[in-house]
Amino acid sequence: MNPYRIEVRVKPRPGLLDPQGKAIHHSLNSLGWEGVNDVSVGKAIYIDIDADSADNALATVEVMCRKLLANPVTEDFEVSVIDEMERTSS
Amino acid sequence: MNPYRIEVRVKPRPGLLDPQGKAIHHSLNSLGWEGVNDVSVGKAIYIDIDADSADNALATVEVMCRKLLANPVTEDFEVSVIDEMERTSS
Repeated sequence: MNPYRIEVRVKPRPGLLDPQGKAIHHSLNSLGWEGVNDVSVGKAIYIDIDADSADNALATVEVMCRKLLANPVTEDFEVSVIDEMERTSS
Repeated sequence: MNPYRIEVRVKPRPGLLDPQGKAIHHSLNSLGWEGVNDVSVGKAIYIDIDADSADNALATVEVMCRKLLANPVTEDFEVSVIDEMERTSS
């Protein structure tokens, strides 16, 4: 078993309400930034997990996303392995 | 000016309190997942912005991070360009 760090990005589905994103968009405009067309806010979740291979670690975390980490009705998710962690666990 | 989508990942600094991460770690254990060593939770922020170049878009968003999006005392951030957005803005 090797330690892997998996990054999960959970984001609101396009078109659904995203009050945090709207608030940040408004704040950026108030602070004088122009050219910002849209802002959306999701979660970035980092999971340190022991697994036989990177593929197994990814597959496990995808199941976690479907069961716990993401709301399948309102959110999309992406998972990826963070390479530097393959050797050194934090 | 071209539209770019910039992804910002804001994460709690290692060693600082992360109650959301602890709660998810505990839930994963309760659901029967073993081999999870640590969980931390941050924000994933997607900013659609018009800029002359990808480098300019990144530089602008880095300033946004320092002024608004991240707390420099408790959080680290990373920014990256999402390639598919360079041609088609959402």
